[in-house]
Amino acid sequence: MNGAARCLFDPTGPAACTIVVLGATGDLARRKLFPALAGLFARGRLAEESRIMACGRRMMSDESFRSLLGGGNGATATPEFLRHISYHRLDFSEAETFSTMAARMRADGWPANRLFYLALPPASYEDAAKCLGNAGLGREDGNWSRIVIEKPFGHDLESARRLNRTLHAHFREEQIFRIDHYLAKETVQNILVFRFANAIFEPLWNRQYIDSVAILATETLGVGSRAAYYDSAGVLRDMFQNHLLQILALTAMEPPARFEAEQVQDEKIKVFRSLKPPGENDLATGQYGAGAIDGEDVAAYVDEPGVPPDSATPTFARLTAYIDNWRWRGVPFVMISGKRLRKKITRIVIGFRSVPHSMFRDILADDIPRNRLLINIYPGEGIGLSFQSKAPGGRFCLGEELMRFDFAGQGDGTDAYGRALIDCLNGERLLFWRQDGIEATWKYLEPALACCGRQAPPVIYPAGTYGPPPEHEYISSLVGEGER
Amino acid sequence: MNGAARCLFDPTGPAACTIVVLGATGDLARRKLFPALAGLFARGRLAEESRIMACGRRMMSDESFRSLLGGGNGATATPEFLRHISYHRLDFSEAETFSTMAARMRADGWPANRLFYLALPPASYEDAAKCLGNAGLGREDGNWSRIVIEKPFGHDLESARRLNRTLHAHFREEQIFRIDHYLAKETVQNILVFRFANAIFEPLWNRQYIDSVAILATETLGVGSRAAYYDSAGVLRDMFQNHLLQILALTAMEPPARFEAEQVQDEKIKVFRSLKPPGENDLATGQYGAGAIDGEDVAAYVDEPGVPPDSATPTFARLTAYIDNWRWRGVPFVMISGKRLRKKITRIVIGFRSVPHSMFRDILADDIPRNRLLINIYPGEGIGLSFQSKAPGGRFCLGEELMRFDFAGQGDGTDAYGRALIDCLNGERLLFWRQDGIEATWKYLEPALACCGRQAPPVIYPAGTYGPPPEHEYISSLVGEGER
Repeated sequence: MNGAARCLFDPTGPAACTIVVLGATGDLARRKLFPALAGLFARGRLAEESRIMACGRRMMSDESFRSLLGGGNGATATPEFLRHISYHRLDFSEAETFSTMAARMRADGWPANRLFYLALPPASYEDAAKCLGNAGLGREDGNWSRIVIEKPFGHDLESARRLNRTLHAHFREEQIFRIDHYLAKETVQNILVFRFANAIFEPLWNRQYIDSVAILATETLGVGSRAAYYDSAGVLRDMFQNHLLQILALTAMEPPARFEAEQVQDEKIKVFRSLKPPGENDLATGQYGAGAIDGEDVAAYVDEPGVPPDSATPTFARLTAYIDNWRWRGVPFVMISGKRLRKKITRIVIGFRSVPHSMFRDILADDIPRNRLLINIYPGEGIGLSFQSKAPGGRFCLGEELMRFDFAGQGDGTDAYGRALIDCLNGERLLFWRQDGIEATWKYLEPALACCGRQAPPVIYPAGTYGPPPEHEYISSLVGEGER
Repeated sequence: MNGAARCLFDPTGPAACTIVVLGATGDLARRKLFPALAGLFARGRLAEESRIMACGRRMMSDESFRSLLGGGNGATATPEFLRHISYHRLDFSEAETFSTMAARMRADGWPANRLFYLALPPASYEDAAKCLGNAGLGREDGNWSRIVIEKPFGHDLESARRLNRTLHAHFREEQIFRIDHYLAKETVQNILVFRFANAIFEPLWNRQYIDSVAILATETLGVGSRAAYYDSAGVLRDMFQNHLLQILALTAMEPPARFEAEQVQDEKIKVFRSLKPPGENDLATGQYGAGAIDGEDVAAYVDEPGVPPDSATPTFARLTAYIDNWRWRGVPFVMISGKRLRKKITRIVIGFRSVPHSMFRDILADDIPRNRLLINIYPGEGIGLSFQSKAPGGRFCLGEELMRFDFAGQGDGTDAYGRALIDCLNGERLLFWRQDGIEATWKYLEPALACCGRQAPPVIYPAGTYGPPPEHEYISSLVGEGER
């Protein structure tokens, strides 16, 4: 970063608030949320008067919870941070546990601005929202009250609508923060800056110059301990409804007049609503069989703990989307994600068209390879542009080179969780889902989900490959680019 | 370079030929030409049966010349290379020295294809061409005969025309190779590949997206031992008529249908002929005074050995050119060159226009800096693209970053001289000047040269600065870019 950076938002520093973590003793809270909070506190991004109320079903003293946390999180959970934390028992079947919490916070003079972070199983979101609302905790009266949930936002269009109805019974849309951690990654946030703070990309950013767009999120991990959730969800619900379609929207959206949450959301929704319903050829799915990752043998999906041996749940999908609008008509947006693939890579590949005429054609046998813009999210956040160049030396040869920029080592240590938390506290909704976006993406996915339901038995791919064989070559070409 | 590079030209390897170096005992030949020939030989780019005839006015045996060369050039002048070299005395006032040379080469059965390299003072070009022609050495009869000269190609339009007439009395235009070593630099050659083998740059390469183009060739050296030539030439003749205007033409030209010499030359000439005659504000000149470079005191131009104390010769010029055609109308091409400036930098800077609308304007105080494409020739050949990016970290900030690619360390060791020689031997004229280009550039420069003649006393700038003060800020902005 050269010269003085110019900054948006957060100009006056953090305001004091109360952060209520529901599900504080759970895995997500302890692994991700509390370390992120500790990091923000250490960097002065949380006001000193802020308080954190950790809540769980277990009976526990403030002290016990603090030692639970201090033990688990090592250096991040300093005594200075831990003394901001109290513990309160909550039970959805005992409404009074919520009102005693409210009374306790009031009595102790905790900051009136409140953030409720639901680090809970999705099945509990509606109960939690009801209990908070019934205890009057959704009300705003000079203060603010916000509720944060993570994906999955429903299981399909119908359940997503029901969840939204319940949330809206107690919280206005502006109070609801639906986190997508992909959106808080540096490179993902950068897509809009890259496109709209630079004059040179937007003129090329359309069907006249772009041939195809690939959005790749391959994983090496298997289903792990999440079989119960994953087997009923599958890869389309787990990755496509949220992360991949968000990236697609950021890549494809029209420029909003202002860089503010509602206008950006409006433009994203327009993309979702322009998606052509997927046809049968647009979708390929598979399920991982036994294989090896990095030389280590791994089990087939159906042999993972908690997975029914006859499961037809897809762990891999390639979904080709078309956006039926003036800018993108006919340009495939190929979204790919899967578990137990050869490498973990998250990347957007903008494939440009060929040169309209090659003046080198008479002399070179082949066509000239096309330019590609790589937006790398993992491993290594950064941007690369492949281009043709004369090979140095006495002979006149062409070859492909990569112009690149890496974000590595430039951050202030704020991770995606921390970033999302700051935005919640600031009421900045740019990186969060809006209800209509959730519903539009479910609606788009419904034919694909229905198609998956009919596909039994699933196509099996060996763990450690790039999914079902027909997809290999294409995925390899996307992956190979970044290895240079 | 990734994968198999695809190559133009030179597919069958080198053919045997005779290389006749006129002025073989001079500085240029010994410092540049023979080392380049030795390098080509070592890399197998000269056929084993090739012979080199070194010619000078002095009487000298083959052996003496070889030891002269072997002593001066160290490792590059191996015994294997040296035994390909003979020596012959030539004198322009003794026509028979040329015919005896021709007879000697025939008698010894040297290859009939001949390259005559005039490593001579420009004042001798016409004499040399006459003598070679009169000895029948310009004739082609199943073999080829080529003559190579270096800049300056005349002193003005009139003298350039006279030189061309003399050359053409003995050699056809296709036999004349006018070397511009700038054109043989990797990055300069790459301009056409970059523009026309990539689909993504050409759509932006016009007045709609480009705001200005700067072509910078600053030097830290003074006039050195070249005062006799330089004082009568000045910076416009020394750098602009050839190098800078060639780079301008490569940057601005329309795409030819084929990548071949005549078509490329045709397009360059079209650029030269579209240049608007320079007005008075388009030119700024200066002459270096005493100062310091890298902490070392250096003398004023007028105090250099051989320079008249009242010389008004410009050692610095900024010439802003406008190309009056559909693509470039109104876009300034700012050419800058000078001696004894702070740093040695050769670079093209393509400055793009601002974003048409900044969606960040409400939040950021300033305008967003513009994108720049840097084509670096020295130091470090390479390409860079400046762009706006989100600064990593929890706050949302914009800053300028540089995506870059360096050609460093990728070559096969062939330098600009070697590259030009190979092309001469292959008859590939792409990197050479054509007569009409020479004349068109002199014609364009005539008003500027006339203007210089009237400017006495000259504007003095201290050595070690960036020229006359009004030019400082702009040049610093061009130079600062590449220091990252």
